[in-house]
Amino acid sequence: MFKEALQGVVDGTDGGLAGLLMDFEGIPVESYARDDSGGFDIEAVGAEVSVVVKAIQRATEMLEAGETREVAFKSEKMVTLIRIINNNYFLALTMSPDGNFGKGRFMLRVTAPKLVDELS
Amino acid sequence: MFKEALQGVVDGTDGGLAGLLMDFEGIPVESYARDDSGGFDIEAVGAEVSVVVKAIQRATEMLEAGETREVAFKSEKMVTLIRIINNNYFLALTMSPDGNFGKGRFMLRVTAPKLVDELS
Repeated sequence: MFKEALQGVVDGTDGGLAGLLMDFEGIPVESYARDDSGGFDIEAVGAEVSVVVKAIQRATEMLEAGETREVAFKSEKMVTLIRIINNNYFLALTMSPDGNFGKGRFMLRVTAPKLVDELS
Repeated sequence: MFKEALQGVVDGTDGGLAGLLMDFEGIPVESYARDDSGGFDIEAVGAEVSVVVKAIQRATEMLEAGETREVAFKSEKMVTLIRIINNNYFLALTMSPDGNFGKGRFMLRVTAPKLVDELS
């Protein structure tokens, strides 16, 4: 179920490389990488990303900005999009810098609610 | 010069609330908030954001993903877009969640190179 959801997000996004469902302790629940992603280490990405997401959650809490919903960061070699599912889990999608960013956001936005029940 | 650049970014973005030029130690160089932003505390945002940006830079370094260029995070009450200028400084734009995200990214992207010379 989780694998299929991740595959749907990654394969449904032009430039999608890998997807990950992870908890905020940095422990992966499920991951999926495209065969042609060149052995992309999505779990290494996820472990780093969980640190970033925690920093962002602390920041939005301090600023009383409400719950964090989405995070994106772009570097020279990849773009990582994150969608917070609930207080314990998040979805991450890593794509190439020339991938379809808007489609990636859309795919995460429609997929996250489908996973909420099973992750509560 | 910096003030004008920030004002251009904020006023040029539908839903823009405030802009900030800050170094990675969390020390603000310049800031600008729209009169109608309700006393928005952009420097408090900046101080929190600098922690997030540092976490992201560590993550991208660990992952050998190249230099971080852009970061965005969206919570219930605001969207914050960040554009890295160089190794020492970044630009941040805070906007309302229903603001024009794409225009904000564009304004930051065209403004950052104009500030590089003066910040090197």
